[in-house]
Formats: sequence, structure tokens, C-alpha cells
Amino acid sequence: MVIMTHHLLNAPNRLFPLGKFVEMLNVAKSTISEDLGFMRQAFERFHVGRVETLAGAAGGVRYLPHHGRERIRAVVEEICAKLRDSSRVLPGGFLYTTDLISSPQHVTAIGDAFATFFADSRPDVVLSMEVKGIPLALMTARAFDVPLVTIRRGAHATDGPAVSVNYVSGSSRLVQSMTLPLRAITPGSRVLFIDDFLRGGGTARGVFDLMREFRAEVVGIGVLIETAAPKEKLISRYISLIEFAGTTDAGEVLVSPSRWVQPS
Amino acid sequence: MVIMTHHLLNAPNRLFPLGKFVEMLNVAKSTISEDLGFMRQAFERFHVGRVETLAGAAGGVRYLPHHGRERIRAVVEEICAKLRDSSRVLPGGFLYTTDLISSPQHVTAIGDAFATFFADSRPDVVLSMEVKGIPLALMTARAFDVPLVTIRRGAHATDGPAVSVNYVSGSSRLVQSMTLPLRAITPGSRVLFIDDFLRGGGTARGVFDLMREFRAEVVGIGVLIETAAPKEKLISRYISLIEFAGTTDAGEVLVSPSRWVQPS
Repeated sequence: MVIMTHHLLNAPNRLFPLGKFVEMLNVAKSTISEDLGFMRQAFERFHVGRVETLAGAAGGVRYLPHHGRERIRAVVEEICAKLRDSSRVLPGGFLYTTDLISSPQHVTAIGDAFATFFADSRPDVVLSMEVKGIPLALMTARAFDVPLVTIRRGAHATDGPAVSVNYVSGSSRLVQSMTLPLRAITPGSRVLFIDDFLRGGGTARGVFDLMREFRAEVVGIGVLIETAAPKEKLISRYISLIEFAGTTDAGEVLVSPSRWVQPS
Repeated sequence: MVIMTHHLLNAPNRLFPLGKFVEMLNVAKSTISEDLGFMRQAFERFHVGRVETLAGAAGGVRYLPHHGRERIRAVVEEICAKLRDSSRVLPGGFLYTTDLISSPQHVTAIGDAFATFFADSRPDVVLSMEVKGIPLALMTARAFDVPLVTIRRGAHATDGPAVSVNYVSGSSRLVQSMTLPLRAITPGSRVLFIDDFLRGGGTARGVFDLMREFRAEVVGIGVLIETAAPKEKLISRYISLIEFAGTTDAGEVLVSPSRWVQPS
């Protein structure tokens, strides 16, 4: 049971044929099924995800990271509490978040939270924008067992032929360009875009333009932190976990769980 | 047992007091200890890591991702086989590796491999260089349960006060600068630098210079791929997993497991 748990947890969303465990552990299929039943109950009882069994020739068992609302809210509250530290306020009113969005513990929990929110979108690819969104996007990709693809600013020789689009960044109001290797995404892909920060939505809008060039579909946009202003974003469909309403003169950081994380 | 396995695997290298499980699962401590004994045996038998129990008041149990030589070699051979695809050869003799070093499946295995090689270095921080090294470094940081810190090229307003050093990149022969926020690393930290590619070692040398400014110690350097030429690198102590000896005119990609991964 321990070894099955190890395999399932080590590769979330990957389907393992029961025969693999029968062979590896050298036990009867009925024992495997019984153990999986116990496992499913335990996971459900402690709200640490779902164990799903698919019948048939192409069937098997897989682990789906699925976190309850309360667990997601607890993680978000914990991150908010850390963000409220006034020493995080940088010159220019920026907020220092780099350590939080790079901590393995936090990014694993955030990746599982996005996997819960976007479970029905069934992405083929998780897309990130260099640099700070990469850890969040990687852990989301891991939770879905799909590739991570990273958009870069400017072209790079080690990426080969690439497609670029221009976009206006909401924060800097500058025209910038985003680039993706031609081979990075196959036409028809379902793409989930994950980023650390959303202000005006200019970057996310650029992602839509870029995906159109690849004939890929953006099936979801998830960001860790969105700013309260501007209220009207350039994109309409997205999910954020935290809302950032700025800092006060006293150095207070105004962050709270977003409307998607509020108790219903 | 399933729930304990879940907690331990979800946070490698983190110490869980047995009392936590006693409380959470509402069972006797002797049952927990017995189950941990079974777990330890199962993990050892199937070579999927180690379960370590520490006695005393500050004691508890933790999971150490520790992969046997054969398992690491199998992962490296699999990546080499994928790298040998001639369509990966880009203009300029570069090799397209971006998809492999972003695949959650591969980076998890590579992170565990680095955690095995550097187990005795006990790093406090895993350091990466933007952009392509980030996923590998994140999964290594996750395996060690320590923060990931990413060096950036140039300064960024959202990082606050920062330290920069100049370095000569082995590949471009250009003087570049690398930057790290002042608050990113505390003096005395033990730092493990993880990157995707090592040619001359200029970047790694720059990392030594940068860490000296932070009064931090570089306790290890791990790279996924090193080039066969130049044979003499600017740094002497490092570990690589794959050696890349270039491409032939016929489009053959010359990669092989490095000397650290060879059977002894």
C-alpha cells in the first residue's frame, strides 16, 4: 500500500494500470483493488486529494490533487499573513514576493490549488511567463502531469525558430515582446496560463494573441496575486487567489484572499 | 499508513513529530511506530528513498528522497535517448533541451538525483540562474525542503536593493552581470547551485564571486549537461549528469551519461 501510495503521489494525474502494481508487488489483483479502496477512503477522509479508478482495458488508477475549499483558504491566509510584513514594501510601492513564490512548500500548495480550480479545464500544457511565474506554473503542471512551457522576453539562440508577439505591459506601459519556440506547443493544445501577478492584464492579453498564432486554446488563466486597481482588467475570465490593494503610508500591506477563495 | 505516507512524501526532508500523527490519526504512538517500520522496509526494498526516525524531544520522522545508482542511471539514459533525436540540433550547433528540462516528470527525477548526490552537503538554499535552470533547481530545493533563490540578469524594481557582480559567460565571451536581492540569502548560508548547462564554467565562477559578497558558502554545484569541450573548466568541483560532445555533420547528437553516473 505504501509503495502504491508512493507511485500515485509521485506522479499526480498519471494513470497506472493495476497490472503494473500486480507485477511490481507480486500480489493478486483483488488485493490491489482492496488496498486502493482503503486508500480512497483515507484520502477522502483527510481531504488530501482523490484516488480515481477507471475500468476497462485502458483503465487503471490515478491520484488527483484535489483540495477542499477550507484547505485552499488556509494556505492563502498563511501567504497573506506573510505578505503583511511591512518590510516587504519596496521603493515605488512594490511588494517583495520573490521568496514566497519560490518556496517549495508554498508553490506545491498553490499548484495543487490551481489544479483544483482548473480540474475541469483539462489542460494539455501549462504556460508561464519568465521569470517569477515559473515555480508556480511548474507545480501546477506537475499536478496535471502535463508539460510546462515558458514564454520568454526576446529571442534566444538555444530555442530555435520562434514566434513573437508584441504586448503592452499594464505596469510599465511599454510595448514589449514575448516569444515562444515554434515547436513548444502543438496546434489544438488546451493551454492553462499561470502567473504570479496580474495588474492590468496586458500580459495575459498578449498570451491570447500568442496562442492564436499557435492555433492553441487558452482554457484558463490563474494568478496568485491581482491588484485591486484597475478594477477593469483587459481580460475577463481568470482566477486569482489573493487581492492586493496597495500599501498605506504607515507601511501596512493591504492583502486579502480573493473572491474565489472566500467562504461561500 | 496511507496518510502518513502522503504527508512524508509531500514534504521530503521535513521532520514530522510522531505526536502530530498520533493526534491527526487518533491512534496509539506504538501503532504509528510499527507502521513507520513497515514503511521503512517497503521504501528500502523498492529503492524509492529512505524513511528516517530521529529520537528525542526534537525528534520525529522524515522522508529522504534517495535514489540508487541504477535508478539515476536509468533516468539519465532515458533523457540521453531523447536528446539524441536529430531534430533537436538547432542552427549554430545548439541543442534544443527546453522541453526536457521543463517536463515535471523529468525534473522531479533530476531533483531527486541531485538530492542524492548532494545529501551530505546539507544546503540551506538552492540557487539557480534564470531562466532554464529554475525548474531543476526548484525540484532539488523541494527534495531538500529548502528555499529556492534565483539569480537574475540585471536589476528589477520588484526585488528591492540588490547585489550585482560581473562575469564572463563561457559561451558568449561577453561580460554580463548577475544580480540577487540583498535579502535573498542570509550570511553563513550553505548554498547549492543547480543549473541546466555548463560550458566553460564562467557562470559558476560568477556564482562563487556573488556568494562571497553575501558571505555564503557554495557547498555544491550540480548541472544537468556539461559540454566535453573545453575540458578544463573555470571551476573544479561540480557534478554533471550528462556529457554533450557536440553534433556530427550527419545530425547525430553525441550525448552520454557523465562519469558520475557511470557504473563503478
